[in-house]
Amino acid sequence: MKVDLFNYTIERLKEIGVSIDDMAELVMEVQKKYYDDITIEECRHHVLSVLKKREVQHTVITGLELDRLAKEGVVEEPLLSILRRDEPLYGVDEILALGITNVYGTIGLTNFGYLDKVKPGVIAELNNKKREGVHTFADDLVAAIVAAACSRLAHSKRSDFTEEDE
Amino acid sequence: MKVDLFNYTIERLKEIGVSIDDMAELVMEVQKKYYDDITIEECRHHVLSVLKKREVQHTVITGLELDRLAKEGVVEEPLLSILRRDEPLYGVDEILALGITNVYGTIGLTNFGYLDKVKPGVIAELNNKKREGVHTFADDLVAAIVAAACSRLAHSKRSDFTEEDE
Amino acid sequence: MKVDLFNYTIERLKEIGVSIDDMAELVMEVQKKYYDDITIEECRHHVLSVLKKREVQHTVITGLELDRLAKEGVVEEPLLSILRRDEPLYGVDEILALGITNVYGTIGLTNFGYLDKVKPGVIAELNNKKREGVHTFADDLVAAIVAAACSRLAHSKRSDFTEEDE
Amino acid sequence: MKVDLFNYTIERLKEIGVSIDDMAELVMEVQKKYYDDITIEECRHHVLSVLKKREVQHTVITGLELDRLAKEGVVEEPLLSILRRDEPLYGVDEILALGITNVYGTIGLTNFGYLDKVKPGVIAELNNKKREGVHTFADDLVAAIVAAACSRLAHSKRSDFTEEDE
Repeated sequence: MKVDLFNYTIERLKEIGVSIDDMAELVMEVQKKYYDDITIEECRHHVLSVLKKREVQHTVITGLELDRLAKEGVVEEPLLSILRRDEPLYGVDEILALGITNVYGTIGLTNFGYLDKVKPGVIAELNNKKREGVHTFADDLVAAIVAAACSRLAHSKRSDFTEEDE
Repeated sequence: MKVDLFNYTIERLKEIGVSIDDMAELVMEVQKKYYDDITIEECRHHVLSVLKKREVQHTVITGLELDRLAKEGVVEEPLLSILRRDEPLYGVDEILALGITNVYGTIGLTNFGYLDKVKPGVIAELNNKKREGVHTFADDLVAAIVAAACSRLAHSKRSDFTEEDE
Repeated sequence: MKVDLFNYTIERLKEIGVSIDDMAELVMEVQKKYYDDITIEECRHHVLSVLKKREVQHTVITGLELDRLAKEGVVEEPLLSILRRDEPLYGVDEILALGITNVYGTIGLTNFGYLDKVKPGVIAELNNKKREGVHTFADDLVAAIVAAACSRLAHSKRSDFTEEDE
Repeated sequence: MKVDLFNYTIERLKEIGVSIDDMAELVMEVQKKYYDDITIEECRHHVLSVLKKREVQHTVITGLELDRLAKEGVVEEPLLSILRRDEPLYGVDEILALGITNVYGTIGLTNFGYLDKVKPGVIAELNNKKREGVHTFADDLVAAIVAAACSRLAHSKRSDFTEEDE
């Protein structure tokens, strides 16, 4: 594959106003009560490691592209209206998020659900910016990336962890 | 919701050449060795019951719309090329399928994987028709509907099953 | 199957101090902000419908039995210690919960994660009672049943819902 | 954690008659049609990498312990009978398998389902040895480890793969 999917994914997230630092700060916020010595640099590292996974890249760009296509209005009805109003019974955004969260094991599920409900920081901003675009997938995808980075961080704290393991 | 998602979903499946009967026949083929008294009418009933689930409707129309948008060429690169060549590492089609399969419990997983690998009947046809369109999601979605219908059929054979349970 | 798994599952939950009403109250608490007219009776109905699913019964009794076997000390080391201290990296409890949550679609994931993190009502009690027994699986299972009941309630509010659909 | 879970997991698999080589051979069998240059050594490496994941270790030892406890007869009824006869509607074994398969992305799902249905090599032997013990979880867990190793191998074939990525 010629295209650099890692950088492309980071670009797409930036376009919707989400930076690596935004996500690293959320990891810090969720995890600092368990590990009081973590640094923002460490959190950035785990966010970047999550984004290096091919599975995560594929899932993020598919969800963000669906948001963009819905904003452009080229998605057929009735799906267009479902995506535009972020219909509460529509669960495909959560399914995609699950594909990201599980990459570092199911302990990420709890953090995903919490972030998706409480919507701290940039996740709330995505949710509030809905007039400017469609962010049906975006908020769940960002919550999932943060949750997966939290899981990776938790795994990295065990004594026998090596970067190669994960 | 005004739009009849149930009939719309069946319409979209028909457009790609997949009828209720095609899927009922696959259910029959997979399940007849376990239950030698099942009829095609019974298989049809379970396929239709799967398609009545809101979760299933949402998942099917999202996947088929992604296939259509890729065929139309309005999906942005590099995702467009990934979808058009059904890139083997792309797993979002399997994630969506999982959302369908799990609706009747995880016993559907085994049948889904088997159908997705062996590709009997209409699933193989979708796979072979790739020159005429993009069917990256279609074959997995159809395999998932059939697998879920097999699970529902298996559950219905227990003595204490009532239609209301499921 | 001769054994009445539905009643047996309810019995096992009662043994650890969790009643249908405890779970109905949690459904009410989570959902009342979305639907201000729901009654506790309605919440009870959805909890009971979740517990009627064979998949849910199997998952609940397996998790509670693992807790009991760990309490009895018949589980082999090192798993015994992992279960007794509810090791944070142990994610099998979340995997089992996922099997319950998904039965009414992935919209249950968010509520599950939230409940598992915030631990309201009886879920906190289970967590605090850990000296009296092992509740590694119990709190996740109860959170999952409540989350699934919330999803079922949300689905039941759509105009075209019939009990037979679900 | 003091206990070496990696070696303990391999020991437990050996006890039920499943070696690293048995699983490597299954990876070879499934993948050789896609990559004609793979060696058994490479397949062994991917199986071992899967078994190094903490999530996988936890899931495998929990499932195998449930099989052992059922064989010993200390599991309470009615779960004991369900496990002993590998009741077809019991899907907790598939849920656990899902926790393993997803660690390298959802492309593992298809291979898992296929292996679980076709039961080649050591998986069939586990299934046939049921008189000697309970292997309700064992066959699904082995199929899941092999499927995850196939996914890891497929990911490793992309040009930009580094061992650290995964």
